[in-house]
Amino acid sequence: MLDLAFRPDPEAPEPLYRQLGAYVRGLIEAGRLVPGQKLPATRELARSLGVGRNTVNLAYEGLAEAGFVTAHVGQGTFVATAVGAGSSAVVSPPDRGRGFVWESLLSQRGHLRALPRATPHGRGGVRFDLRAGRVDAGALPLDVLRRAAARAVRELPDVASHVEPGGSRALRAEIARQLVARGIECGASDVLVVHGAQQALDLVARTLVDPGDAVVVEQPGYFGASLAFAAARATLVGVGVDEEGLRVDELQRILRARRVKLVYATPAVQCPTGAMMSAQRRAELLELADATQTPVLEDDYDCQLRLGSTTPLALKALDVAGQVIYVGTFSKALFPGLRMGYLVVARELRRRLALAQLVSDFGCSQLDELLLLDLMRSGALQRHVKRMRRLYAERLAALLGALREALPDEVVCAEPAGGTALWVTLPATVDADAVHERAEAAGIVYARGEEFFLDERGARHLYLSYACLGAEELAKAGAALGEIVRGAWRGRPRGGA
Amino acid sequence: MLDLAFRPDPEAPEPLYRQLGAYVRGLIEAGRLVPGQKLPATRELARSLGVGRNTVNLAYEGLAEAGFVTAHVGQGTFVATAVGAGSSAVVSPPDRGRGFVWESLLSQRGHLRALPRATPHGRGGVRFDLRAGRVDAGALPLDVLRRAAARAVRELPDVASHVEPGGSRALRAEIARQLVARGIECGASDVLVVHGAQQALDLVARTLVDPGDAVVVEQPGYFGASLAFAAARATLVGVGVDEEGLRVDELQRILRARRVKLVYATPAVQCPTGAMMSAQRRAELLELADATQTPVLEDDYDCQLRLGSTTPLALKALDVAGQVIYVGTFSKALFPGLRMGYLVVARELRRRLALAQLVSDFGCSQLDELLLLDLMRSGALQRHVKRMRRLYAERLAALLGALREALPDEVVCAEPAGGTALWVTLPATVDADAVHERAEAAGIVYARGEEFFLDERGARHLYLSYACLGAEELAKAGAALGEIVRGAWRGRPRGGA
Repeated sequence: MLDLAFRPDPEAPEPLYRQLGAYVRGLIEAGRLVPGQKLPATRELARSLGVGRNTVNLAYEGLAEAGFVTAHVGQGTFVATAVGAGSSAVVSPPDRGRGFVWESLLSQRGHLRALPRATPHGRGGVRFDLRAGRVDAGALPLDVLRRAAARAVRELPDVASHVEPGGSRALRAEIARQLVARGIECGASDVLVVHGAQQALDLVARTLVDPGDAVVVEQPGYFGASLAFAAARATLVGVGVDEEGLRVDELQRILRARRVKLVYATPAVQCPTGAMMSAQRRAELLELADATQTPVLEDDYDCQLRLGSTTPLALKALDVAGQVIYVGTFSKALFPGLRMGYLVVARELRRRLALAQLVSDFGCSQLDELLLLDLMRSGALQRHVKRMRRLYAERLAALLGALREALPDEVVCAEPAGGTALWVTLPATVDADAVHERAEAAGIVYARGEEFFLDERGARHLYLSYACLGAEELAKAGAALGEIVRGAWRGRPRGGA
Repeated sequence: MLDLAFRPDPEAPEPLYRQLGAYVRGLIEAGRLVPGQKLPATRELARSLGVGRNTVNLAYEGLAEAGFVTAHVGQGTFVATAVGAGSSAVVSPPDRGRGFVWESLLSQRGHLRALPRATPHGRGGVRFDLRAGRVDAGALPLDVLRRAAARAVRELPDVASHVEPGGSRALRAEIARQLVARGIECGASDVLVVHGAQQALDLVARTLVDPGDAVVVEQPGYFGASLAFAAARATLVGVGVDEEGLRVDELQRILRARRVKLVYATPAVQCPTGAMMSAQRRAELLELADATQTPVLEDDYDCQLRLGSTTPLALKALDVAGQVIYVGTFSKALFPGLRMGYLVVARELRRRLALAQLVSDFGCSQLDELLLLDLMRSGALQRHVKRMRRLYAERLAALLGALREALPDEVVCAEPAGGTALWVTLPATVDADAVHERAEAAGIVYARGEEFFLDERGARHLYLSYACLGAEELAKAGAALGEIVRGAWRGRPRGGA
């Protein structure tokens, strides 16, 4: 076995698994680990370094995602034969002569590291797919979509000679019209149509965030937001969440201690805990934002898939001064590959964001814009959303029922206010690493809590999406997970089945 | 008349019209010019300041584009009643209480100014639309597109549960396969599908360019590239072009004098002059890039619409070390609102660019990807391109014939190697400002040369697109332009009709 001389640095700001990943990567880049060479098994390495096995897993996964290593089920992890070529079956042209060295030319932004993702790729076979950020593509109304696409193509000659960045006026007006349901009064000129919520976050980061600026993100929170702000080289500051959403008392302490450029929040359905921000918290948040003149970015991503009967208005609806940046998306209501989202912002900022969009990509796909407008105008989008809400409510009930039956009381399954996934918290009496490993081995794939934290606090959490499986399958998945959790108990669980 | 105290600063790096624009904008922002107030007529202001009328026009156009002023044909230019609301007919909600001040929160990148565009919006009525960057949307094969869109919708359930950043493997493989025609050997893993060529440029800028880094751009050159690099706060350095394309001798002098991060070039069809880079220049460029270890970004945007019988291979085909970044697009072959383009780059850089794309927007529209793949596989794309080449060749011949007949010999109309537009150079004996003004007044709209220069050298040029008009209309447009140019002659032209 390779003897790794890695020594963890407990003082470093980076979590352990990142330190380990960077160290192994350095060995690969320096040629001390050569292509095809087998890395130590995670169990062995964890033991020899005195770290958790999950730390090694995360480090290896990060390396695999970055293309430095490849994992072969049942065989182990190997140094990749060509960096980035892990998923390629096509033979690339031979390296003719000396290779150009790009590494030394990277900009500071170019050195961005991928945030660690802790979702298995399901390479070992997927039995129950509970991965997050997905929709049930099989439930899409294909006939409706096909007819709308045909109409969109027919309209192309009127618009396709050139592009209209920021979205067609008609689409912006329709979005503005439908935002009344969220309590937002605005017109077409207040809306900027962008390439999904992620582009909205990126444009805001480009336009407001300088390197070193502090941006507050929820903890746990949405990894895509952290990614966008990290790419702008922000200093990410975590604020806690509880069952009422973002903790404003904690935010107040943060804002007293330092200047903050932006607060990112998911009030409708907190990602990932599923908590709905209470009315009192909303009022407090806006009051605090006003008192400190701090902008708030409201990511309303799951508002359309809310499960409760009452839907509180958007935070933006209460925004008197224009300091809330509102982001909406159609990724959840339709499908993420539509890549359509929008911003509602003060005019002054909209002008800047539109320019940043012009630089980024000149705007959205016209076919998708025409298709979306058709679906919004005909009511087909609303009908589909209504249907999916019922469907997802059934699925949530099935998964939650199975989990609560199979799990001891100490395991907390938070009932979400909406969306497509469930946040599960394991007690300290469970070997969480063992749960994750055994679940993956059993083909149960889901996002682990690590994805939603800036530090290593996530290991005790599972984020289980019920979007893509029927109620029966979800009941089975819940039962199987319950068994795994019970099997990983240190000592005897007190309650439950 | 308002007395403007503006005094031009001949030492300032910014061209005169930008200085003037910034000055007027300052007056608006400071409240010294109030909403609805009329600005001085361009002729008066030009005279009182002792500058060219075109300078004032450009300044006003920049202000109009940024939403600070609105132009009303026959009435003049007025301070906008609400910034950014110039194009809006919807009444926005009243400003409830104090407005949040965004300006002070902008990042350094957020302060980016729009590059001045010198294309009239055609608000005064368009008789002949010769604006650049357009395609003939009426010539799109709608039946083919509709059937392909229907097939794309049918395939959605297989892919739409989640997104695949960087393009589906199938599409990347098909692009790689078809790149053989450009002499480029690559596989699916070398291709990154992005949201149009503009996103390709922006991702490269994010990944390689730090503030202050020098980036060499052609002069005249494509404004979208300058915009992407300016947004990354690069120092733009112009290199001349002639009838053989980018002047490598001049580039050599630049590279001797300073470290350059990137050289941007359009070898197939130089934008805007239409020149094809000669074989010797290509070899010299790569040799120089190799000797100085400087990356070259090859924007092959118009390669599919080349008009000549022989098509030289891409520069990338000669790239042994992997230092050429190749950018392709489907905006010209199909339509710009498809927003589909791609990069072919060394694996090491591809990994970085893919991460930057993940941050930017998670990838492209799945419907557009499926549609494009269908069109590429069925050969429909190639058939459409072949048809458009014939069509554009006819149109170019019509416009060029009319211009050459109507214009004195001193006016140079460069025959482009391909694409959809023609670069015209007026001699010093013509009052270029008068030409632009009279053309606009006559409803002949086109991009002026200013758009393609970093400094003020562009006024003598017209960039005339023949994409959207039939041969007959183009002949009329050419004759009308010829008459305008002859009417703006200082003294008597020597040759021509």
